[in-house]
Amino acid sequence: MTDRRRIASASAAGKVMTAEQAAALIPPGAHVGMSGFTGAGHPKAVPQALAARVVEARAAGESFTVSVWTGASTAPELDGALAAVDGIDLRMPYQSDPVTRAKINAGRLDYVDIHLSHVAQMVWEGFFGHLDIAVVEVAAITEDGDLVPTTSVGNNKTWIDQADRVIVEVNAAQPLELAGFHDIYYGTALPPNRKPIQILHTADRIGTPYFRCPPEKIIAVVETDAPDREAVFTPPNHTSHLIADHVLEFLLHEVAIGRLPRTLLPLQSGVGNVTNAVLAGLEDAPFRPMTAYTEVIQDGLLQLVRSGMISQASATAFSLSDAGQADLRDNLDFYRQHVVLRPQEISNHPEVIRRLGCLAMNGMIEADIYGNVNSTHIMGSSIQNGIGGSGDFARNAYLSMFLTPSTAKNGLISAIVPMVSHVDHTEHDVHVIVTEQGLADLRGLPPRRRAQRIIDHCVHPDFRPALQNYFDRALAVAPGQHTPHMLTEALSWHVRYLEHGSMQTSPDRPLGPPVLGTFTGR
Amino acid sequence: MTDRRRIASASAAGKVMTAEQAAALIPPGAHVGMSGFTGAGHPKAVPQALAARVVEARAAGESFTVSVWTGASTAPELDGALAAVDGIDLRMPYQSDPVTRAKINAGRLDYVDIHLSHVAQMVWEGFFGHLDIAVVEVAAITEDGDLVPTTSVGNNKTWIDQADRVIVEVNAAQPLELAGFHDIYYGTALPPNRKPIQILHTADRIGTPYFRCPPEKIIAVVETDAPDREAVFTPPNHTSHLIADHVLEFLLHEVAIGRLPRTLLPLQSGVGNVTNAVLAGLEDAPFRPMTAYTEVIQDGLLQLVRSGMISQASATAFSLSDAGQADLRDNLDFYRQHVVLRPQEISNHPEVIRRLGCLAMNGMIEADIYGNVNSTHIMGSSIQNGIGGSGDFARNAYLSMFLTPSTAKNGLISAIVPMVSHVDHTEHDVHVIVTEQGLADLRGLPPRRRAQRIIDHCVHPDFRPALQNYFDRALAVAPGQHTPHMLTEALSWHVRYLEHGSMQTSPDRPLGPPVLGTFTGR
Repeated sequence: MTDRRRIASASAAGKVMTAEQAAALIPPGAHVGMSGFTGAGHPKAVPQALAARVVEARAAGESFTVSVWTGASTAPELDGALAAVDGIDLRMPYQSDPVTRAKINAGRLDYVDIHLSHVAQMVWEGFFGHLDIAVVEVAAITEDGDLVPTTSVGNNKTWIDQADRVIVEVNAAQPLELAGFHDIYYGTALPPNRKPIQILHTADRIGTPYFRCPPEKIIAVVETDAPDREAVFTPPNHTSHLIADHVLEFLLHEVAIGRLPRTLLPLQSGVGNVTNAVLAGLEDAPFRPMTAYTEVIQDGLLQLVRSGMISQASATAFSLSDAGQADLRDNLDFYRQHVVLRPQEISNHPEVIRRLGCLAMNGMIEADIYGNVNSTHIMGSSIQNGIGGSGDFARNAYLSMFLTPSTAKNGLISAIVPMVSHVDHTEHDVHVIVTEQGLADLRGLPPRRRAQRIIDHCVHPDFRPALQNYFDRALAVAPGQHTPHMLTEALSWHVRYLEHGSMQTSPDRPLGPPVLGTFTGR
Repeated sequence: MTDRRRIASASAAGKVMTAEQAAALIPPGAHVGMSGFTGAGHPKAVPQALAARVVEARAAGESFTVSVWTGASTAPELDGALAAVDGIDLRMPYQSDPVTRAKINAGRLDYVDIHLSHVAQMVWEGFFGHLDIAVVEVAAITEDGDLVPTTSVGNNKTWIDQADRVIVEVNAAQPLELAGFHDIYYGTALPPNRKPIQILHTADRIGTPYFRCPPEKIIAVVETDAPDREAVFTPPNHTSHLIADHVLEFLLHEVAIGRLPRTLLPLQSGVGNVTNAVLAGLEDAPFRPMTAYTEVIQDGLLQLVRSGMISQASATAFSLSDAGQADLRDNLDFYRQHVVLRPQEISNHPEVIRRLGCLAMNGMIEADIYGNVNSTHIMGSSIQNGIGGSGDFARNAYLSMFLTPSTAKNGLISAIVPMVSHVDHTEHDVHVIVTEQGLADLRGLPPRRRAQRIIDHCVHPDFRPALQNYFDRALAVAPGQHTPHMLTEALSWHVRYLEHGSMQTSPDRPLGPPVLGTFTGR
């Protein structure tokens, strides 16, 4: 029985069908643009039905794959389901699904890792070919045929605009009161017709609350009632508390010497437990009221909004624990006054990020002694998730900070290495590196002074002597002394891990107790 | 005898002195902001007088160094003179001087390599400490005390604003008719007070023609009569002709399929002979009238303006051969209608570059099979020049192209390697790679397909089998198949060069005749 509160358009109501019927409208080889960003607002039913079609086709001896374009990561019922049946031939621009990751690293799924601000324009420019079908979750279809977004905006505007045909999932589990959170900007264009994006403050609204979609483009409406993915919120541990303390002390210092306003500048915080801990650490900081111009609203950020510490937050998606989702649902009228969700081409736009002067805090996999950062690859070859928006923010931020525990895998891997095995953020884009050992402020420093500062402040004591030794010998023998490296050893820590399961020089040596540093100054 | 046509301000006329007297006003340890960009518009006399002071101080047993901040590269009489006497302790943001480079790579001079769009804001933000003195070349000082810029703008506005004291060189060799070329924008601010930069078209003017400077800040006026550095213009050779042909064919193709307008989009062209050759190759192209929103106007670009092929060109500096300089001088009234010079924070601003949709063409040192580009380092340790504006343009361009001959050092070095020894532009920022062998369009491709395309289209035949062999074995044995690498061999080509003077596997093998490819499609 069609819910006419959610499907008010008569035209749309006439296209209600099952997920299986809708999935049957997606041909093999299609380029499919799906909604979804960090497990929020993705279609819940059609992708699984499409996966079943793939299995059937294969049983009948036919091949069946599609290209899947999204906002960012989705959930097991989208990426997981389609990857499990080898139903995806090309995936972009970001993923974090374990099944998808395994398929990519096994060479069975092609993945293109793109700055999130680049996706919409590249599709519009035609770099990925034509978009055949959009599959977009909404909270409702208005009488006029407008689409009410749900918990993420991502690339939905672009998918709906660019696709020949649109399949809409109307999710009864998404509150109708989400209407009004969104600011869908229709002013982007291809050059030479681009105009300034007139956002001067975090909360500025320059668009409309709904997605427009010509009714004739909609070929199917599928009713669902399913929650977003839970973003498991791990309470901060001792390591992440220390990282948060270093960041807080640094921000206090920058305010004290007049390099930051007393209410800071708009915060950007990458997804993850460490950045969540930093946000939690701001709960009692003297920076009230702060703002956030970021990609994703996690639990830590939501709590700061709830407590009034953050007065305005702009993002393209929520990514919440079950408790956070319940809090949001219970207080929609409150949050609607303090939160705006934008298309990711705007939430991540270099023009706006640079104008607002964001304070960017992103996690990473590893950094090297010269401040190059690897956000995406394990040991140079395997993808972890993707670069996401970290490049959009790091390059254009007022302050670009990268945060990580100093070790991984129970101390077998050092997060600071002689040379990173893959570069996502170059030495030119990294201002500050923080581990639980301390904080290294690299601004204005030439490479060799960056190296000594990182070794002194950020490296775990188990690895510090070896890294100092590498640097000292490079200073002695490298063919050039701007960025002294010994190329025969630069990647040896990674090779050692691949061969012996540890970056430690003596794999048999028992690891000492965790040595946690204190903030040792800038 | 003071030239009152050029020094019309009575206050300034009263401060005329010799370069030696002016240099005596610069204390040891000072942070000095100097004019100059690609050998144009740098101070001609004070830096040499300062170098003499350094020598005298050292003879007296005193240490004397200064920090030198500029727009970009300067000339032997600035960088060369000061580096030769070890008078610089820190240099930023870009240099190309052989003496300076040697000192940096010998570890005797600290160099910080920065995106050119970041410099002004970082200084304003205080990341480099306080600016003590500005030394700026001008064509004239007006009666009102305004300063008429010369052949580069660079960071002069910021130096004059930020410095406590200003030394002005008034260069009689710079035509007074340069007045009117410049658009000095005073609307930048620190966040949270930044506004949109209202440039919508290449030729839009949003500023004033002069630098403002409070008269009391000026502590010395020095009269000079000396030319800019000659940017030696090497006529295109067979290799650069082939590269230009590939680029032209590619642009024609993009126009033909509707991905570029018939008049293209604003061109950006990095400094160098290869990009100059590409510009020369556009002389007969059917893209009239084109525009350029770029950093530097070289001979190739000037010729396109002269011929009417380019109707409007925006840059922050000229960098011309002696013939080009003469042509500019002889036709100032013509060029003033078609050229605007801006501060480099605007010429290189991500907001404007992305809005206009520049077509970026930059040289490089090497690329790897996955499309990461090294623009700055030789064999991982030694600086060549610096990143300049290539990152500002590559990240934000509509199309980001990197151009290089496929080999260097008479064929001993391959410009395409398994893994670059330093990364300035990541795989996320590189759309197209061009060598004389061909053009690889990497847009929308996952890493392994990028690798095969680069190997097929861009690698010199002398190196192609070895690179294919590396890639094939990585496909077989790499621990992850997203970006298959063998870390034990990834840098082996560079190691081989350092140890044997050649990247070729058999250094004794005679090089075959140069094999030049044809364009083999996209």
